[in-house]
Amino acid sequence: MTRTIKLAVIPGDGIGPEVIEQANRVIDAVVAGGDITIERTEFKLGAERFLETGDTLPEIEQAAIASHDAILFGAVGGVPGDERLRSANIERGLLLKLRFDFEHYANVRPCVLFPGVESTLADPGTVDFVVVREGTEGPYVGNGGRLRPGTPAEVATEVSVNTAFGIERVVRYAFETAMARPRKKLTWVHKTNVLVHAGATWQGVVEAVRAEYPEIAVDYMHVDAATIHMVQNPAQFDVLVTDNLFGDILTDLAGAIGGGIGLAASGNINPDGTFPSMFEPVHGSAPDIAGQQKADPTAAILSAGLMLDHLGLDAEAERLRAAVRADRAAAGAQVRSTAEVGDAIIAQIPARA
Amino acid sequence: MTRTIKLAVIPGDGIGPEVIEQANRVIDAVVAGGDITIERTEFKLGAERFLETGDTLPEIEQAAIASHDAILFGAVGGVPGDERLRSANIERGLLLKLRFDFEHYANVRPCVLFPGVESTLADPGTVDFVVVREGTEGPYVGNGGRLRPGTPAEVATEVSVNTAFGIERVVRYAFETAMARPRKKLTWVHKTNVLVHAGATWQGVVEAVRAEYPEIAVDYMHVDAATIHMVQNPAQFDVLVTDNLFGDILTDLAGAIGGGIGLAASGNINPDGTFPSMFEPVHGSAPDIAGQQKADPTAAILSAGLMLDHLGLDAEAERLRAAVRADRAAAGAQVRSTAEVGDAIIAQIPARA
Ligand SMILES: CC(C)[C@H](C(=O)O)[C@@H](O)C(=O)O
Ligand SMILES: CC(C)[C@H](C(=O)O)[C@@H](O)C(=O)O
Repeated sequence: MTRTIKLAVIPGDGIGPEVIEQANRVIDAVVAGGDITIERTEFKLGAERFLETGDTLPEIEQAAIASHDAILFGAVGGVPGDERLRSANIERGLLLKLRFDFEHYANVRPCVLFPGVESTLADPGTVDFVVVREGTEGPYVGNGGRLRPGTPAEVATEVSVNTAFGIERVVRYAFETAMARPRKKLTWVHKTNVLVHAGATWQGVVEAVRAEYPEIAVDYMHVDAATIHMVQNPAQFDVLVTDNLFGDILTDLAGAIGGGIGLAASGNINPDGTFPSMFEPVHGSAPDIAGQQKADPTAAILSAGLMLDHLGLDAEAERLRAAVRADRAAAGAQVRSTAEVGDAIIAQIPARA
Repeated sequence: MTRTIKLAVIPGDGIGPEVIEQANRVIDAVVAGGDITIERTEFKLGAERFLETGDTLPEIEQAAIASHDAILFGAVGGVPGDERLRSANIERGLLLKLRFDFEHYANVRPCVLFPGVESTLADPGTVDFVVVREGTEGPYVGNGGRLRPGTPAEVATEVSVNTAFGIERVVRYAFETAMARPRKKLTWVHKTNVLVHAGATWQGVVEAVRAEYPEIAVDYMHVDAATIHMVQNPAQFDVLVTDNLFGDILTDLAGAIGGGIGLAASGNINPDGTFPSMFEPVHGSAPDIAGQQKADPTAAILSAGLMLDHLGLDAEAERLRAAVRADRAAAGAQVRSTAEVGDAIIAQIPARA
């Protein structure tokens, strides 16, 4: 009996298509010889599509994407400063729209320093944490406005909206994530001493949920202090949970610590399964190096690994990660093309147990 | 003719009094033999005072502080989790109240990696930038609220308020700061792709003001990407300007890069002189090591140096910094008490030219 997985692929702009090509090759190689069939539908969305047709995310395509089992997402964004994109906001209209509409409330971003990966910040093998970033509310809701734009009396607001409903589900997800890991530690991050309203709601929810998880050691850090801890002692972290904006900032920093943003994977998870989850490298579209086979596809490949986890294909996910680990240990500092990294990782995939 | 400087001193809590004691000694040593008299008034404010009297910042004391030429501030904050402080919020009621009421709109935080300072991140001598953090608006205004607290239907908002008036004055200050430095480079940091309302206002103001400063090279970074740049290539930065919350986060990170938060100085500047400016180390009150002479007073001493700059005592400020530099180059990795660091820096103060 074969299982068919319906995969929506959004390669996007810049280096997106190149890295997604390699991620797809690795997925195929890792499922080969098993009982899985991958059925792909590609959606051409992003800045390039917008410039061609004026579309950001047509309703009919969003509905089509929703009918898939998972989404593999490259990167979106045109050349910075392109005036034709000024009015577009592809980020809000496409990427964030998918995260919000598909209830991707657990934005999961692991930070693992593999042996062989150079980092100025920590010894390989000592860093292994995961940031669970809230993905559907907070300062990202887009609420707010501009009054008297372009005049000296201009005022702009941004309203961060935080609900017990939204916080509880992601905090619970983070506790469950910590339960499944050996160290059983959760650090929640906010800025409760300044953002007193949202901070109090977060604190109340964390305190209520932690009562159900007496095995988990919980600590709290202000976001500013968390950056120092992440730089000076990243090995202390196991699971972190934080709001949408703090999570955005901390996971780029974590990427730098995990040997560079070329390795940082993420999953936009809808744990309830009401909509497909979406997997994407943390990096952007990097238009300056697009089409040159210079981008490291490892972040996209590791994101595909998170997708395999999510789909319950644990053995396949583990073999994918084993291949990436082996490749990193073997590769050293040599310069490789995007496809060469894909080739090398495929060559390292261990046989099925 | 001697000049009298009226200095308001708020040592605060935890390690605040210890580090301020050394800062005061260094100030006295560096002005000695000149024509400056320092007249100090000490204000006992902070968590300890709150626990004794219930006061955070009585109006009459705020008025008294306002009548001084400058404020030297240690650190405030009680023991984390102290239930008696739950309702207090010393940070908002004291520290942020002073910054807001005294229009400290340019929160200036230099990051200089001195020779002799160990940092995992960069070579000594290559890092020399300053973050100009907006200090009077943005997400720090305290606007927002909590609806149905403690229930599953709880909602909390935080409203970031951004005005062209408030942004323009700090952006202009940052351009002026860049003009006074050899590299003439300004990086503004925001999250314009997500926080589109405030981002557009920031962008409009930066574009308008930069037209007046054609000598300055301007670039933009999203705050998440800025953390990566700060870790991987801090030497690229000259002057950064950003909003209150992003500045809070980036300057703790910068502290870690500048050899540790024990060295990070700051000035809360009111460039218009309508109220006294306030100088404080970036670090907190660290109650866990308070009273043990373990804290490094260098951040407080360098903050006093920024105060001397602000008061126009350029030669004294330069001699203070020369002493700190010499001390760092000489000290190596030895463990010293708070007072020993003060002694050593005083011993390194160069004679008047
Ligand atoms: C592109 C942008 C909207 C996005 C975000 O801010 O979430 C990105 O930075 C990320 O971290 O996935
Ligand atoms: C103590 C706190 C209110 C303060 C801030 O957030 O500004 C501190 O972190 C700082 O950076 O000076």
